[in-house]
Amino acid sequence: MKKVAIVMGSDSDLPILEKAIALLQSYQVPFVVHIYSAHRTPDEAKDFASNARKNNIGVIIAAAGKAAHLAGAIAANTTLPVIGLPIKSSALDGLDALLSTVQMPSGIPVATVAIDGAENAALLAIEILAIFDSTLLEKLEGTRKENRLKILEKDTLITNKYNK
Amino acid sequence: MKKVAIVMGSDSDLPILEKAIALLQSYQVPFVVHIYSAHRTPDEAKDFASNARKNNIGVIIAAAGKAAHLAGAIAANTTLPVIGLPIKSSALDGLDALLSTVQMPSGIPVATVAIDGAENAALLAIEILAIFDSTLLEKLEGTRKENRLKILEKDTLITNKYNK
Amino acid sequence: MKKVAIVMGSDSDLPILEKAIALLQSYQVPFVVHIYSAHRTPDEAKDFASNARKNNIGVIIAAAGKAAHLAGAIAANTTLPVIGLPIKSSALDGLDALLSTVQMPSGIPVATVAIDGAENAALLAIEILAIFDSTLLEKLEGTRKENRLKILEKDTLITNKYNK
Amino acid sequence: MKKVAIVMGSDSDLPILEKAIALLQSYQVPFVVHIYSAHRTPDEAKDFASNARKNNIGVIIAAAGKAAHLAGAIAANTTLPVIGLPIKSSALDGLDALLSTVQMPSGIPVATVAIDGAENAALLAIEILAIFDSTLLEKLEGTRKENRLKILEKDTLITNKYNK
Amino acid sequence: MKKVAIVMGSDSDLPILEKAIALLQSYQVPFVVHIYSAHRTPDEAKDFASNARKNNIGVIIAAAGKAAHLAGAIAANTTLPVIGLPIKSSALDGLDALLSTVQMPSGIPVATVAIDGAENAALLAIEILAIFDSTLLEKLEGTRKENRLKILEKDTLITNKYNK
Amino acid sequence: MKKVAIVMGSDSDLPILEKAIALLQSYQVPFVVHIYSAHRTPDEAKDFASNARKNNIGVIIAAAGKAAHLAGAIAANTTLPVIGLPIKSSALDGLDALLSTVQMPSGIPVATVAIDGAENAALLAIEILAIFDSTLLEKLEGTRKENRLKILEKDTLITNKYNK
Amino acid sequence: MKKVAIVMGSDSDLPILEKAIALLQSYQVPFVVHIYSAHRTPDEAKDFASNARKNNIGVIIAAAGKAAHLAGAIAANTTLPVIGLPIKSSALDGLDALLSTVQMPSGIPVATVAIDGAENAALLAIEILAIFDSTLLEKLEGTRKENRLKILEKDTLITNKYNK
Amino acid sequence: MKKVAIVMGSDSDLPILEKAIALLQSYQVPFVVHIYSAHRTPDEAKDFASNARKNNIGVIIAAAGKAAHLAGAIAANTTLPVIGLPIKSSALDGLDALLSTVQMPSGIPVATVAIDGAENAALLAIEILAIFDSTLLEKLEGTRKENRLKILEKDTLITNKYNK
Repeated sequence: MKKVAIVMGSDSDLPILEKAIALLQSYQVPFVVHIYSAHRTPDEAKDFASNARKNNIGVIIAAAGKAAHLAGAIAANTTLPVIGLPIKSSALDGLDALLSTVQMPSGIPVATVAIDGAENAALLAIEILAIFDSTLLEKLEGTRKENRLKILEKDTLITNKYNK
Repeated sequence: MKKVAIVMGSDSDLPILEKAIALLQSYQVPFVVHIYSAHRTPDEAKDFASNARKNNIGVIIAAAGKAAHLAGAIAANTTLPVIGLPIKSSALDGLDALLSTVQMPSGIPVATVAIDGAENAALLAIEILAIFDSTLLEKLEGTRKENRLKILEKDTLITNKYNK
Repeated sequence: MKKVAIVMGSDSDLPILEKAIALLQSYQVPFVVHIYSAHRTPDEAKDFASNARKNNIGVIIAAAGKAAHLAGAIAANTTLPVIGLPIKSSALDGLDALLSTVQMPSGIPVATVAIDGAENAALLAIEILAIFDSTLLEKLEGTRKENRLKILEKDTLITNKYNK
Repeated sequence: MKKVAIVMGSDSDLPILEKAIALLQSYQVPFVVHIYSAHRTPDEAKDFASNARKNNIGVIIAAAGKAAHLAGAIAANTTLPVIGLPIKSSALDGLDALLSTVQMPSGIPVATVAIDGAENAALLAIEILAIFDSTLLEKLEGTRKENRLKILEKDTLITNKYNK
Repeated sequence: MKKVAIVMGSDSDLPILEKAIALLQSYQVPFVVHIYSAHRTPDEAKDFASNARKNNIGVIIAAAGKAAHLAGAIAANTTLPVIGLPIKSSALDGLDALLSTVQMPSGIPVATVAIDGAENAALLAIEILAIFDSTLLEKLEGTRKENRLKILEKDTLITNKYNK
Repeated sequence: MKKVAIVMGSDSDLPILEKAIALLQSYQVPFVVHIYSAHRTPDEAKDFASNARKNNIGVIIAAAGKAAHLAGAIAANTTLPVIGLPIKSSALDGLDALLSTVQMPSGIPVATVAIDGAENAALLAIEILAIFDSTLLEKLEGTRKENRLKILEKDTLITNKYNK
Repeated sequence: MKKVAIVMGSDSDLPILEKAIALLQSYQVPFVVHIYSAHRTPDEAKDFASNARKNNIGVIIAAAGKAAHLAGAIAANTTLPVIGLPIKSSALDGLDALLSTVQMPSGIPVATVAIDGAENAALLAIEILAIFDSTLLEKLEGTRKENRLKILEKDTLITNKYNK
Repeated sequence: MKKVAIVMGSDSDLPILEKAIALLQSYQVPFVVHIYSAHRTPDEAKDFASNARKNNIGVIIAAAGKAAHLAGAIAANTTLPVIGLPIKSSALDGLDALLSTVQMPSGIPVATVAIDGAENAALLAIEILAIFDSTLLEKLEGTRKENRLKILEKDTLITNKYNK
């Protein structure tokens, strides 16, 4: 089975990424986690990306804040799908990371998810792998159903409280 | 082979989407094109999304402008990966469509590309299908090489002009 | 008498919405409250909207954060007036929810109020019902007078303090 | 039957508003049109708002650009529902008018629609009147159906062109 | 001597305005303070503005947050110079109040100062009165000199610490 | 009579400023016009500001685009009231000039008007001079009345066209 | 003498860069020009940066639009000073390129100039080289004087026109 | 050896600047620190800039918040390279300081770094001096290696934790 790789630009991003890791674990999707910076370890980031496919990786999640180049730098060195996760930092409320991740030039796409949206980054990776994997697909459909039921339970609670 | 679906919220988006269509054609990836609005044809959009997987679709590209809900509305009704393409319209310079597409809540990811980035939407779809398709992969690698060579040719031209 | 419906995308929005609920209660306007997500329970959201008019609902308030599609998804399935209430979340300071709610395409309007402006959402719903309901109108006029008097009292206090 | 009032801050807004006027005409909704500026004719704007209800007006559409105070100034002087229509002008791409219209303080709501969204302003006014008017309701449902069919026709055209 | 008037839209703005009040007191400039809301007490706001000149007021400072119409509403009813002070509130980081205050249409200027810049609002009022008042002018020049000296003292401290 | 000074950072700003010049001429307010750049002629800008009061200038209008420092640089060297006029340039839609002009630090206020709002800059200058000049005041009141009548005439035209 | 290198991400940036080239030519600063994309030719961009110092380059100007990673990618592979020039493209008015260029993480600075500010990028490069080069310094001082005189001439023209 | 000068607009900026000071100390680069305000001590700021080169300063770092004119005011009075450091303050999340610093007009460049990016301001100053100083260059290369190793160590830790 193809692995998901999670790469983050700094270990300060780890608290956000833990939601993605937990989700991959709960789906029993094999994964690797790395800290590589597009700017401070460009060679390692490049080598990682260049070898990802032969290392049996199917999808890469790249998370970074501010001038968030990591996802683009990874995408420049692989034709695997790269999911960009913009991380909010102390100024500009995450807008810098979002624009730096999503506004990629023609030829090198990055699949961008919401600011700090680690859970969705993991889900998107699983959706991609599930195109050809019916076990994952079943789990995804299960999660959707569970999420739906959780909301409907909350709706029942609130209905009982307010709607006579 | 899995198909790519392109859905747009309005036929005014077609000029932008034609770049995606041309790219899919040049890769000989089978595709379907639809105009469905999240707001004006919600049932058709939903039915399309719900049946996409059984209709042999692998990835869906959803393009919309302004309060661009289409990608999210599609994603709510399928566990296939959905690529969101924000379209620039007359006010706010595309920021509205970008935020409406990318800032999805936990549980329902949308893989967002740049504003008006139709070519990258198509390339991302192909990258996803190419995880398990070596023919597509070869073409992708070919495109990368071509793009690289085009830039290097232009570099040679400019080098000859300015750098003695 | 027509009811007001309050729908929120997540129970985390409830603390904001409680101001709307309290206001409707103080006006003795009948209301229902629901938690439905445009993305996680699209069918329930749709069914709710489709049946709202026959369930004697006159106005719907829909509250959501981030890529706030809920108001639009409700509006797509009813011709009742839908009031959109953008909720501020952890990034982008509420701008994402505001643009996702207000920038609706032609044909499907959403009556948008201020970010986290739950009280005004309820007041707007009451103003709408009051067009044909003189009891509500009287109460609205009363609230206006009270609000005016509260400010004038504060003005007197501050005048006494600073203006000899 | 209640009338809809359209008030604009400047005659330069008229080309945008004409879409609202045409829509009201096609629905045979009685309406009045005025040019009043919150800043240059504050008394007339106030008198208009104060007398609107007794002049058989049910809903007011107020359109203005830049520091768009008109909708708020109208709303301050009536408890009728006021629809705010932000107009894009030469700088800031309409963001100024949007924020000036929608970010109203508690107590005085303005039902804001999209920047330059004159058609939706008119439709929202009609939706409000249609709560208690089955003829209008029927027309609204008809428009929805027509809009849906127009999109489906375009979908058929594009399907025939691209999807064998 | 002409008075300065400070008008604020809500008593929640008072903590910001206290810096303006203190500064006026230290300059011994006569002043009045009022709480009037453009939306909740439009008549009182208007009456205040209309009578300001005959009440010996020379400059008006108007402070408000969100869709900050107060300065514009005052300016619409007087030809005295009106200083607009945008107040930061819980969403959008003060940008809404800034744009609502500064982007006034031709014919009705508002002299806008920085978000929460109460001290500068008061100083600007004094600069205006000082055009024809040499006592105030002297005090203004004094403040400038003091501010300069305060910075130069701090510069000396830091120079002694870091520059051997 | 005190003069108004207009200073602009570049002669490319002149087409915008001509509206201010024309307005001052129509009011017969004496004025001077200068091109001084905060960055390219800092000494001349400073000298101008330092000597403005003794040169019988009462109010200074400073217009600049991009990182619009001119108004602040002038204000740093005079205690006369300085009106800042942000000019829209090719990128960022005037937001850069607006923020650079209005967000002044405590101690040095700049009275900022709307982006490209040259007419209001001139009117504000006149309002300031009119505090102590009844002839100017009369003209200002006249302009207000004229502007009001112009709008009411347009209102009559549109009323005749649309309101039977 | 050290050379200045100009690298641009696409030949569509050339019309903007020509102002930088012309300026370097007029200063007789030796320079090289290259087209390298951070994403489409990452290896060439890296090799160029890694070898720049030994190729006698002193300063590098890197220009790119949208998610403008080029300056950062160059800076990651050299300790030469890198000047980032954000290029405005079709959406978001250059804000994306600005934030992607300037918001660099600690450790890898990029000296960012204004959007489309090619002339200033070249001037900054020359200022850097002029620290240790008195010939360049003299030319820089000359340019400053010329620019100052040009403005003063324009000031004289406008003074003659408007100030009797 | 040339010195680096650090100038800040207010002593409230010192906590941010201390990171720059510490970095210069660790590199044993001689430096001076000053507090000068573009607006409250314009003459001292100007004198400092005019004399910087003859005082053996090679690069100037200028830090300021809000309408951050300091870097521009310094740059207007020297042809030394000036590094602008925008400081985040209480409103607008640092965007005001960034735009006021970076959007300089043609002729007077400011080398802008990230909001609150004091460490990068110092590193950029050192990179500039290191063009002609092999000792500094060695230290810079050493820092790069250390930063790289720190990240690789963290990568090893996380790899050991998550990647079996």
